[in-house]
Amino acid sequence: MTDLAGRFRALWDEIAPVGRDAGSGGYLRYALTEPELRLREWFREQAEHRGMPVTADGNGNLFAWWGDPQAGDVVLTGSHFDSVPHGGAYDGPLGIVSAFLAVDELRGTGVVPGRPIAVAAFVEEEGARFGVPCLGSRLLTGEIAVERAAGLRDAAGVSFAEALGERPAGADPALLGRFAAFVELHVEQGRALVEADAPVAVASAIWPHGRWRFDFHGEGNHAGTTRMADRRDPMLTYAFTVLAANKEARLRDAHATVGRVSVEPNATNAIPSRVTGWLDARAAEPETLRGLVGAVHAKAAERAKRDGTELTCTEESATPLVAFDGGLADRLAELLDAPVLPTGAGHDAGVLAAHLPTAMLFVRNPTGVSHSPAESATDADCAAGVTALARVLEELACR
Amino acid sequence: MTDLAGRFRALWDEIAPVGRDAGSGGYLRYALTEPELRLREWFREQAEHRGMPVTADGNGNLFAWWGDPQAGDVVLTGSHFDSVPHGGAYDGPLGIVSAFLAVDELRGTGVVPGRPIAVAAFVEEEGARFGVPCLGSRLLTGEIAVERAAGLRDAAGVSFAEALGERPAGADPALLGRFAAFVELHVEQGRALVEADAPVAVASAIWPHGRWRFDFHGEGNHAGTTRMADRRDPMLTYAFTVLAANKEARLRDAHATVGRVSVEPNATNAIPSRVTGWLDARAAEPETLRGLVGAVHAKAAERAKRDGTELTCTEESATPLVAFDGGLADRLAELLDAPVLPTGAGHDAGVLAAHLPTAMLFVRNPTGVSHSPAESATDADCAAGVTALARVLEELACR
Repeated sequence: MTDLAGRFRALWDEIAPVGRDAGSGGYLRYALTEPELRLREWFREQAEHRGMPVTADGNGNLFAWWGDPQAGDVVLTGSHFDSVPHGGAYDGPLGIVSAFLAVDELRGTGVVPGRPIAVAAFVEEEGARFGVPCLGSRLLTGEIAVERAAGLRDAAGVSFAEALGERPAGADPALLGRFAAFVELHVEQGRALVEADAPVAVASAIWPHGRWRFDFHGEGNHAGTTRMADRRDPMLTYAFTVLAANKEARLRDAHATVGRVSVEPNATNAIPSRVTGWLDARAAEPETLRGLVGAVHAKAAERAKRDGTELTCTEESATPLVAFDGGLADRLAELLDAPVLPTGAGHDAGVLAAHLPTAMLFVRNPTGVSHSPAESATDADCAAGVTALARVLEELACR
Repeated sequence: MTDLAGRFRALWDEIAPVGRDAGSGGYLRYALTEPELRLREWFREQAEHRGMPVTADGNGNLFAWWGDPQAGDVVLTGSHFDSVPHGGAYDGPLGIVSAFLAVDELRGTGVVPGRPIAVAAFVEEEGARFGVPCLGSRLLTGEIAVERAAGLRDAAGVSFAEALGERPAGADPALLGRFAAFVELHVEQGRALVEADAPVAVASAIWPHGRWRFDFHGEGNHAGTTRMADRRDPMLTYAFTVLAANKEARLRDAHATVGRVSVEPNATNAIPSRVTGWLDARAAEPETLRGLVGAVHAKAAERAKRDGTELTCTEESATPLVAFDGGLADRLAELLDAPVLPTGAGHDAGVLAAHLPTAMLFVRNPTGVSHSPAESATDADCAAGVTALARVLEELACR
């Protein structure tokens, strides 16, 4: 264990400085920007070092192959390199680093896979640059139209096609058809493993979740001279909606967050003309989620009447409940003697689960914190994750 | 009247397109940026056209002189060109255009001033670019240190000294000592003149006002996976504070606005680690303002405890009550048969009032809206403003 933890640390240290913000200690690894491109180059070096040829799918996703890429019946693992703004070190990269180390572990035991094994690096999983999470896996599976994906723009106006350097290839059923299973290892984004006192878990499901944009329109005006009674201030309706979302989520044992806001003109001495807030909502059951968003919308609309503002609510994305392959999850939980947990977070595994048997492994996160510099995992737990992933790959590809 | 309204419109149309945003219809005339520099050039052309020499004070303020700049006992008028983001057309420029037309009116009657008259264009009145309102008049009067003003930076990191092209000259008691009085004409930023059914008013006072920055610190985390009970979400404390500010202001017949917010990391799927809101608060009496800000702070701090967040509150600026020269205001109100009104908005006249007899004239604004594209004034009312200003200049400089 100590040796493997040491090997993990050595490999981890190679990428730890890339894209780290000295101020926050968090990562700015947006898809296809310089830090993420450096990690993709590192991916190619690691694959070459292991004699694994690398292919690109024309959608921004990379695959490193142990075995014949054309043979089919492939066991796929891996994750993503990109981060949210000032995100943690582990969300994404842990799954790729662990995949290469799991290959090393299998090779160290002299096992010869009966099926090819591939390590994937998916592009734009977070949606932090172009707004649509799991963009690479959605393109590969055809769950987003090429036209729409190509035209998504970042904050500076650069389109995804421009960043990629080509028009994305879109759905690739031939490639997808060669994958027999996908297993994504990921740092846990909660504290269930801390409470269960276990280093590794197997995922059961991803909660249904989505993003709703609330646009509140009012009347821009001078902050100093406009009587309170004459105002139509959309910031008030926004603030009320933030508190309502929190309350409604607590009532339902669901999750609701307003973590992003945009204000026009956003000046200290001006009543805003427009405030836009994005509601991120998640729940264990689809009907709970629908009820939550409906209640927040109704309360916001009621308050808008009182404030003299106008509200439009737009569903920007909605992901239904993803139940991972139950047989596969049970088999891996038994193999690893690991607990089985649901999660509220979306992943490329959630997209691929609709197309092939898919599983996820979670590695304990002592803080429970994710999408933040405080996200963490011990080297010993990361080594336990590598060991678990190697056993899973052996189970799926070598028996 | 019709002739003067037509002359107003002709001159107004010369500057109306400069810096207008085609999307919002509002103005982006930030101090010392291209649109504002074009207006300053237009100022020089207008002065030259009237045979008025122009001097600069080394602080970014321009003066056009009818009479000897060195003679002293000068009657000063004018205003500013810069705007808030997507501001209205009249806030600032109306005072400068009206000043030139008032000079034309006086000359048309053959009146010869016994004292010099000067038209001023003050720099960065709004504080929209460098954060400190009335920067030009504060520098001239020594109310801001040269060191601090020179180092103020805009959002792109450009300092005021860099934008100005020189280190600001700072306090100029010699120049200031030559001014006998200042009269600033300004569009009304409220609806009192609509209700009084009068085109022009004289100002009595500027309410005490200030800006307070509320920094709410919490714990950045994943929006999907963090249980509501485990959160320390600063957006909740911010939202509560916005609503508390509104309520406390209404209770006191004061004004409170949170029109500007900044969020870290401002991502849809991340609980923020930090939310900063700026409170703009104003009241007729200093003790009312103190009570308002104290109550908002207390409620925010109480909520922060419940949310597990931390709050720091910083006074960024505070301007005491400005009572304009009472004798001068009464004299002008009688001369013009105009109502006398207080205002909640800061102006260069408020800064200069501490140094010389100062008055303001307000021109009716049918919408009552300001700091917004909806700000307006009819050509007839603007002509009435020019007539009033010409009578005031005649009263102060020609008798």
